[in-house]
Amino acid sequence: MEEERLKKQLDFILEADAEKRITRQTYNADGVTKENDAEHAWHLALMTILLAEYANEPIDVLKTVKMLLLHDVVEIYAGDTYAYDEEAKKTQAAREEAAAERIYGLLPDDQGEELSALFREFNERQTPESKFAHVMDNLQPMMLNDATGGKAWVEHDVHIDQILARNEVTHEGSEELWEYAKEHWLDKGVANGTILP
Amino acid sequence: MEEERLKKQLDFILEADAEKRITRQTYNADGVTKENDAEHAWHLALMTILLAEYANEPIDVLKTVKMLLLHDVVEIYAGDTYAYDEEAKKTQAAREEAAAERIYGLLPDDQGEELSALFREFNERQTPESKFAHVMDNLQPMMLNDATGGKAWVEHDVHIDQILARNEVTHEGSEELWEYAKEHWLDKGVANGTILP
Repeated sequence: MEEERLKKQLDFILEADAEKRITRQTYNADGVTKENDAEHAWHLALMTILLAEYANEPIDVLKTVKMLLLHDVVEIYAGDTYAYDEEAKKTQAAREEAAAERIYGLLPDDQGEELSALFREFNERQTPESKFAHVMDNLQPMMLNDATGGKAWVEHDVHIDQILARNEVTHEGSEELWEYAKEHWLDKGVANGTILP
Repeated sequence: MEEERLKKQLDFILEADAEKRITRQTYNADGVTKENDAEHAWHLALMTILLAEYANEPIDVLKTVKMLLLHDVVEIYAGDTYAYDEEAKKTQAAREEAAAERIYGLLPDDQGEELSALFREFNERQTPESKFAHVMDNLQPMMLNDATGGKAWVEHDVHIDQILARNEVTHEGSEELWEYAKEHWLDKGVANGTILP
């Protein structure tokens, strides 16, 4: 029984390896390679550890890190949905729900339930941890866009209205980080023309 | 002052992005792409969350995850040292020490000290967390080698003696995981000839 449990955990760990091959639209800081889901999750976990002090409400750091390490794992079956692809976003919830059932079903029941509950909590965005996790998820691409001269923004003709609509509630996770991002990354992007007005 | 602190944290986070471009010798589960340091750290953090129950002694999971998310960050200045490259290993400690001073020096003092202490703790391998972290770091490439028909083992003519020498104290972190790895990955690799006798 013990070995069967371990086998399930390792099957999940090996299946999740596919996150390394899900490419996102964001360029890494070199401005050449595009980020994949595993790299992105690593970066967000690291950011959480260093920036948790800016959360509006105190957060459980380990819980937030767990949430972020796997927040995109459903994409190994459901694919990445670009933040500003309105067509793909219509089917995103249904595709990701089915994918969650499949991937978390590989794990022993207790762990599958814990992690799929964290995935739902992330999407529902009601707790301090999920609100802060979205700050990380939304600000990290802005940071990388700023570092690469707005490369992904320019390629996708992104408008400031789209970014602001997507980030309507980002401030609920961290007023301070949201203010910093607006001033240092978004206002600058609009000023230098890499974000459309 | 507050904004200066945040600026330092973001500088570190952006500098660490270079981990995404440090390639390791291990192939990912697809058997085509090679893993990079950021992907590797993500995978180890995920494994820690799922496998902590197998640690010989109870571990602080968040502390172990913090240790693993950055255990290779010094390589952005010091380069990756392949586990079985005996020449490179002679200068590894000195190169990594200098790199640690430089990278952790970017952070606010309190966080730089916390993270460089975790890096030293990882290397000294005396605590339950650092012992378990090495189990993750050593077993994950075995799992990927097994999943890819021993591809990196074959390319580097790896002998079982080398693997066993490198893993002499791995069992101190988790007897159970080490036994599993020996039986399912190493014995199998020797039996099918992908690991040399």
